[in-house]
Amino acid sequence: MTDAKAVSEKATPKQMADAIRVLAMDGVEKAKSGHPGMPMGMADVATVLFSKFLKFDASRPDWADRDRFILSAGHGSMLIYALLHLTGYKAATKEELSNFRQWGSKTAGHPEYGHMPGVEVTTGPLGQGLATSVGFALAERHLAAKYGDDLVDHRTWVVAGDGCLMEGVSQEAIALAGRLKLNKLHVLWDDNDITIDGKVALSDATDQKARFKAAGWAVKSVDGHDMKAIKSALAWATKQDKPTLIACKTKIGKGAATMEGSHKTHGAALGAAEIAATRLGLAWDHDPFEMPETILSAWRKVGRRGAKARKAWEARLKDSSQAADFTRAMKGELPEAAFAKLDAKIAELVETKPAQATRQSSGAALDELFAAVPELVGGSADLTGSNNTFVKDTPILDAPTYEGRYINYGIREFGMAAAMNGLALHGGVIPYGGTFMVFSDYSRPAIRLGALMGVRAIHVLTHDSIGLGEDGPTHQPVEHLAALRAIPNLLVFRPADTVEAMEAWKLALQHKDKPSALALSRQKTAAVRTAASSENLTAKGAYELRAANGEAKVTLFATGTEVPLALEAADRLQANNIPTRVVSVPCFELFFQQPKAYQDNVIGRGTVRIAVEAAIQQGWERFIGEDGGFVGMTGFGASAPAEVLYEKFGITVEAVVAAAKARL
Amino acid sequence: MTDAKAVSEKATPKQMADAIRVLAMDGVEKAKSGHPGMPMGMADVATVLFSKFLKFDASRPDWADRDRFILSAGHGSMLIYALLHLTGYKAATKEELSNFRQWGSKTAGHPEYGHMPGVEVTTGPLGQGLATSVGFALAERHLAAKYGDDLVDHRTWVVAGDGCLMEGVSQEAIALAGRLKLNKLHVLWDDNDITIDGKVALSDATDQKARFKAAGWAVKSVDGHDMKAIKSALAWATKQDKPTLIACKTKIGKGAATMEGSHKTHGAALGAAEIAATRLGLAWDHDPFEMPETILSAWRKVGRRGAKARKAWEARLKDSSQAADFTRAMKGELPEAAFAKLDAKIAELVETKPAQATRQSSGAALDELFAAVPELVGGSADLTGSNNTFVKDTPILDAPTYEGRYINYGIREFGMAAAMNGLALHGGVIPYGGTFMVFSDYSRPAIRLGALMGVRAIHVLTHDSIGLGEDGPTHQPVEHLAALRAIPNLLVFRPADTVEAMEAWKLALQHKDKPSALALSRQKTAAVRTAASSENLTAKGAYELRAANGEAKVTLFATGTEVPLALEAADRLQANNIPTRVVSVPCFELFFQQPKAYQDNVIGRGTVRIAVEAAIQQGWERFIGEDGGFVGMTGFGASAPAEVLYEKFGITVEAVVAAAKARL
Repeated sequence: MTDAKAVSEKATPKQMADAIRVLAMDGVEKAKSGHPGMPMGMADVATVLFSKFLKFDASRPDWADRDRFILSAGHGSMLIYALLHLTGYKAATKEELSNFRQWGSKTAGHPEYGHMPGVEVTTGPLGQGLATSVGFALAERHLAAKYGDDLVDHRTWVVAGDGCLMEGVSQEAIALAGRLKLNKLHVLWDDNDITIDGKVALSDATDQKARFKAAGWAVKSVDGHDMKAIKSALAWATKQDKPTLIACKTKIGKGAATMEGSHKTHGAALGAAEIAATRLGLAWDHDPFEMPETILSAWRKVGRRGAKARKAWEARLKDSSQAADFTRAMKGELPEAAFAKLDAKIAELVETKPAQATRQSSGAALDELFAAVPELVGGSADLTGSNNTFVKDTPILDAPTYEGRYINYGIREFGMAAAMNGLALHGGVIPYGGTFMVFSDYSRPAIRLGALMGVRAIHVLTHDSIGLGEDGPTHQPVEHLAALRAIPNLLVFRPADTVEAMEAWKLALQHKDKPSALALSRQKTAAVRTAASSENLTAKGAYELRAANGEAKVTLFATGTEVPLALEAADRLQANNIPTRVVSVPCFELFFQQPKAYQDNVIGRGTVRIAVEAAIQQGWERFIGEDGGFVGMTGFGASAPAEVLYEKFGITVEAVVAAAKARL
Repeated sequence: MTDAKAVSEKATPKQMADAIRVLAMDGVEKAKSGHPGMPMGMADVATVLFSKFLKFDASRPDWADRDRFILSAGHGSMLIYALLHLTGYKAATKEELSNFRQWGSKTAGHPEYGHMPGVEVTTGPLGQGLATSVGFALAERHLAAKYGDDLVDHRTWVVAGDGCLMEGVSQEAIALAGRLKLNKLHVLWDDNDITIDGKVALSDATDQKARFKAAGWAVKSVDGHDMKAIKSALAWATKQDKPTLIACKTKIGKGAATMEGSHKTHGAALGAAEIAATRLGLAWDHDPFEMPETILSAWRKVGRRGAKARKAWEARLKDSSQAADFTRAMKGELPEAAFAKLDAKIAELVETKPAQATRQSSGAALDELFAAVPELVGGSADLTGSNNTFVKDTPILDAPTYEGRYINYGIREFGMAAAMNGLALHGGVIPYGGTFMVFSDYSRPAIRLGALMGVRAIHVLTHDSIGLGEDGPTHQPVEHLAALRAIPNLLVFRPADTVEAMEAWKLALQHKDKPSALALSRQKTAAVRTAASSENLTAKGAYELRAANGEAKVTLFATGTEVPLALEAADRLQANNIPTRVVSVPCFELFFQQPKAYQDNVIGRGTVRIAVEAAIQQGWERFIGEDGGFVGMTGFGASAPAEVLYEKFGITVEAVVAAAKARL
């Protein structure tokens, strides 16, 4: 062994960090698009975290008890891609890195869950990675309480930037984490004083450390380029009884020859000249994406660091009496008898025909499901009684024991929805959470991200129309059904009665690869599904609830609380010798997945078609065509009792009958 | 004068506050719906504020230099209705109070702007009143710098509850206010330890005072039922050089016989028995809505307190050389020559035919408008360069001078949009603000509230499709056009080129009673309006951009960057002897306001109809019918260069041609 080789065999931590820097700048340069500044700035922190603290095994990205690493500042995606490549994640090949931001690559512009193993959550919309991490950390505490820390004992590490901390959702997240004392949640703040428009001081003068302290966090500052100090700060973090923030003072684009510290490194390729000069400065004499063996092998060793712990954990799991249940729950599979009680209840309901608000129906569904599906964990953004989300006698999920199954999310709709995404992504938990439907505008960014990631989070949205009454237009959704139906990969249910509500709950649980939103009424409504059928008709999305007496001349489509109204209108039309069928439409998305022949059958193009929904028309043309009638809303609601509003806005049996007759 | 009368003539402050309490509980009881707890709890604070500090004249709710009172905790609407009634606002009659929450009354469940004079902003969706108040306070500072404090010198007082402070948008608001040193913004926090679900501690342990301090606020605590202490705290607030928070420790439902301090007083009528007992406890021996003369006259005196100052101000205005301009701007009227330069530029553009991104076109419109419309105040949520919102050499609106016209909003889309509502509501300012279109999900609650109130805020939403490219699906709007078009009273423009962009800006400014959203491309696109016309065709919402050569067999509808693609497809179809017309659709809303005959003409039902838009189909059926074709997106986008994405997702000339041919 020559001296030179002996020296080169010992890659220094600085060289390891520089490997990240170079991959980041080269990846962005190749793509001519991306964000090199953050990965270069946080390379030292990430090197210490991965080589000394993060519990992981690069050969098993799906190890259930791994620490979670969440890049909330998702634009710095080359940081995580570089780390996954260097530590030896099989999917993170050199080719993938050099195909950064290209069609079909796993290295999307922002890290995307499901594309590249090792990416725990899709990030990019700022603040949400942090808010989602609260769900991860909470899932860990909950499952540790449930299965014991032999099986569940890991940390959630988050890299967040100034943008994440300026977004309002960060406050909801840190207040919730602080309240719940999530001491295994660690946020590494890339405190580089830079945003896209320039210095942070242009738009912000917040004392972030004081803010986190006020939210119940332990806080420490560190020089983000002093590896020894970083190591000691991370060690400190693991010993606190609160969530921890480490303010890592860094220079954006650290190492860049002339642009270090400038916002110009944030969101664009550095350019050939700067990159060449930077290579010189870093004494990095290798081609793009080429890694010297010594540095690669040092990183690969880091990637294997957790293998022993992983194997020991697997042995413990094997010996555990809870192994089967734990494994099932983590896979997202439902218990075998998940729906036994629910199905029996549905059979009973078609006999008893209860008239109740569909929010109550949803609560009744939970009553049948909650014991049978132990991974269901509920909550509400401070509207528990109104959302009917609480199952009697459920213990609260809270410090210090965490085995409870109900979360007091506080008045934080967005934070709740993001935390639900995190709970679902972690695995072992199926989250649902309630708020008023109008406030889906607040939680919308997280509902969308959940749909993009394909996670099973169930949004319980009560008070779903002007039927909310006196609270008025600020609280009355009129455009929200359309706006939610517009989100791809989201199932939006508006059940008409208890049977449909229970069917919707069943479907929401059965679709493990997408979120669901349940639109539920405040006001009482009649039972419409009064004929026994073992088929889940809601699964069809739309179905003929009542056939015409004679050859159908009119089809009435309706959802939710407007279905009884459509039935009554059908009675009137039938009484006038106008054969009328009624179609209940609990879920647009599922309907348009049905075979074309079924769709045609249900739609009934030869008939006069009228839809009734206490919301705007947008989207209904697919049922009623251009010439069909729509009885619903055309603008915002008003403050008055519900029945007055229905009358004043013309959502009445008479209006439906008139709309049909006008077209015959 | 008898002794008894002499005594009764001196209404005590306690009696004045009790008047609020009784009106609140009686109003809610009559409606059998509402929120008595907060008005009863904050009655003492409100009494001190109105009788000693708030600058107002009940006879002139529209006095431009009045202090603004903003009830961010809007559910406590009976507080403001009671105050307006007691102080003598003409519209706030006894009848209105006793018609609380009924159809046609001015006393909606939550305070609604435009219904009752004295209500400055619609509140209810929590946190937004506070966030909007930042816009009010900023408008005041800006106009004071512009017109002098002889004309503009008032305060913004906000009552906020725990819910407001838990919402994330509160952080965006207080950080922005702190950074901008809005020292005439005063938040009175109803610190009652109660939320709907119970104690605040169930879901929150935030040290709110420390949090506000961290955001640059001056903070003080006070016993919210000790009027002397309240008075001294409010006096202190007016002397600070920062925005101020006064934590008013109160009991919710203060005065209620047995329910004082309970969350049960929050959101429901107290009931006859409790109300009777409360009357006894307060020694209040009057019928519902009946006010004893002494108390009413004490309150009416409060309502007249500001008359002298108001008259003095009117005299100053009359003498001011700026009177005409100030009055015009406050009325929201545009300068006479507002569009002279813009119109000339449009005439020039049809000759020069520039190919540029429509975000650049929007920037070019601003170049022509910014000097001509001096009340335009812009900004961006940290994407200034990308949004093209900055007009060269514009000074920044910032402490200490505030005369600048560009706001660094920071990474706070929701806070920005809410502040824009406040700037617009205050008057004298026409706000616009930029972000990426995908983040309209973040600002959506404020866009909606702006639409509900009918305020002229202009949302500049760039990077409006998969044309954004490599940043990927987290940053690519696909459902946002549909979701925004779903909001009533919002004008959504997607201009195709610079001419349409300029026309859209003109329309956004001309519609003073509604907000607008401009969807603008990142990528370059060809000019399509190359024929001179003095008519603003965008005002029609949709128009025939190119007639068919021969009797039209095909109509192609398109918006934005897809219009040139439709034109090219039309060329191909024409080359195949298929006469094809092209309709540009810059604004759905305006189109559906046109006369039916015009709509029919443009839609061309006899032709094969195809729409092309790089977004989901929802809503397009009104143009293309059930059998028309749609070339666009069916799900989320992906990370790759824009041109690759258009190809891979099949949004191409070939696809449009094929869709048309398949239907012929």
